Amino acid sequence: MKAIVHVALKNGVLDPQGKAVADTLARMGYKEVEAARIGKVIELDLEDGLSSDAAEARVKEMCEKLLANTVIESYRVEFA
Amino acid sequence: MKAIVHVALKNGVLDPQGKAVADTLARMGYKEVEAARIGKVIELDLEDGLSSDAAEARVKEMCEKLLANTVIESYRVEFA
Repeated sequence: MKAIVHVALKNGVLDPQGKAVADTLARMGYKEVEAARIGKVIELDLEDGLSSDAAEARVKEMCEKLLANTVIESYRVEFA
Repeated sequence: MKAIVHVALKNGVLDPQGKAVADTLARMGYKEVEAARIGKVIELDLEDGLSSDAAEARVKEMCEKLLANTVIESYRVEFA
């Protein structure tokens, strides 16, 4: 089973990396870009035989403890 | 219009950041994680009035020129 964790900065949190991308695109002539925000995707390969309830609970724990900084980031998990 | 660009390392390219995450999770007791890979998501706000054909062509160009390193990364774009 695969868990796909999407981590993004919460609204209102400054995103200097996204700003740098947007500014650079504008300088390159892509004036149609008004803003850019950058997030992370963490794809976890989970061992077989894990129930989907267990997987959901464990991955949520991993997000809270390691994968996301919940002070400034939000996350969502999908399974595939 | 929003363009969402997903950038991931190509298969076979070493992902030290993903390895660090997988090793750390294992050390924390999450033995069910067999591997982790890390990618980026770049969300672009595009000005209104752009046709979807134009947006697609322009964003593809941005990916090739700036957003992805196509030697080691693959990308896909979706519009929302």
